[in-house]
Amino acid sequence: MTYCVAMRLNHGLVFMSDTRTNAGVDNISIFKKMFTWEVPGERLLTIMTAGNLATTQAVVSLLEERAKAPDDREPSILAAPSMFQVAQLIGEVLRDVISNHEQSGQESSSAFNATIILGGQIKGGGQRLFLIYPEGNFIEASEDTPFFQIGETKYGKPILVRAHDPDMTFEEAIRLMLVSFDSTIKANLSVDLPLDLQTYQKDSLQQGHTDRIEFSHPYYQLISNQWGESLKSALDALPDYAIKDQT
Amino acid sequence: MTYCVAMRLNHGLVFMSDTRTNAGVDNISIFKKMFTWEVPGERLLTIMTAGNLATTQAVVSLLEERAKAPDDREPSILAAPSMFQVAQLIGEVLRDVISNHEQSGQESSSAFNATIILGGQIKGGGQRLFLIYPEGNFIEASEDTPFFQIGETKYGKPILVRAHDPDMTFEEAIRLMLVSFDSTIKANLSVDLPLDLQTYQKDSLQQGHTDRIEFSHPYYQLISNQWGESLKSALDALPDYAIKDQT
Repeated sequence: MTYCVAMRLNHGLVFMSDTRTNAGVDNISIFKKMFTWEVPGERLLTIMTAGNLATTQAVVSLLEERAKAPDDREPSILAAPSMFQVAQLIGEVLRDVISNHEQSGQESSSAFNATIILGGQIKGGGQRLFLIYPEGNFIEASEDTPFFQIGETKYGKPILVRAHDPDMTFEEAIRLMLVSFDSTIKANLSVDLPLDLQTYQKDSLQQGHTDRIEFSHPYYQLISNQWGESLKSALDALPDYAIKDQT
Repeated sequence: MTYCVAMRLNHGLVFMSDTRTNAGVDNISIFKKMFTWEVPGERLLTIMTAGNLATTQAVVSLLEERAKAPDDREPSILAAPSMFQVAQLIGEVLRDVISNHEQSGQESSSAFNATIILGGQIKGGGQRLFLIYPEGNFIEASEDTPFFQIGETKYGKPILVRAHDPDMTFEEAIRLMLVSFDSTIKANLSVDLPLDLQTYQKDSLQQGHTDRIEFSHPYYQLISNQWGESLKSALDALPDYAIKDQT
């Protein structure tokens, strides 16, 4: 499995992804799930992937090949004039890869499906954040739903729902996302460190802060250790349920 | 879907279940998922059910029928000499019901599966808590895993993992479970109020405190409203992530 979160803030985007892949609990590996294409001053595109690793790697390789030689291999995500068209292009590549694998005549016990989060900005347009489905269609983050999760999303959702605020700073958003990741990592073996982190400052049209958060990362250690205590204190601060008629 | 939690504390057991059932989001109903059989001073048995409603209702009806006329309809859960044998009996009934439905020749788009939590105590034995699988086999809660969840378990798990303590009072356990339920209800339409609540005081051999928690329940309102704020405060109390080299 996988866990990735992207958040749309008023002043930018924040991306965080784990790196665990598994084919059964006895076959785990570390793979990067966050990929960025950048033309400084012109466009910044970041995607995060969840699902069948062969599918997502094929999609990234195809996008990469086309981006490297855009004259030969149209359409490229570096040539598409808008974020909407980038999303459309990635959706088509994703759908084609899945359908090729499915039609190859091979049977697989697991699905070839994958889901992709795309965020970024192209000069002349605003920052945008999309969730692209295996069918190639996609939805965009709005003010009402300003973050997307893919993969093992349930454990880390309640804290995001409760604490998300589009006015947050990058630092606050990263803190919130780390808590969401820590809750997921503690509950599910298929999500694990190291985590990849990236921020995008709105209208900067270039990659922002990046970090790889290993288990030994002092800030992760601090969050992981203190959050449990903070939660217990918050719980203790709530009033008691009164058992009136205990028999 | 469903959400049920049972917790083994040092001085007793606590059960909480939701009441939402759904066959698609356009077909929702309220059904009780917690059932108790009691012979005061001799045994107390409580089960909670998740899964196919026809299956769980059939299981409960069969157990009920046998319990009402134990002389005719052996084996009854009111006659079984130990909690282990009660778990075995319920497991067999559950497996038989599922297998009857599956072999009836009817096709179903959803599975006939169900899962059951069983807790209680029989005179001469200790309090015990079991999780019974659709296959009829079961596991018992231990000191290392002192609570069981069934149904939509993921949203509400992190807080249970973090804050559970076998020395908790019933009041503290109920508060923790309500927070876990509230997180789940806020994130997933297939779990909803009212909630059923029951405590069992170890060695009392009779039903403890019971409550049905509706949306208007003052304590639920209080938890639901205050927990969001408490979470945000706990998050704000964590140190900030430092973006050193923002480019």
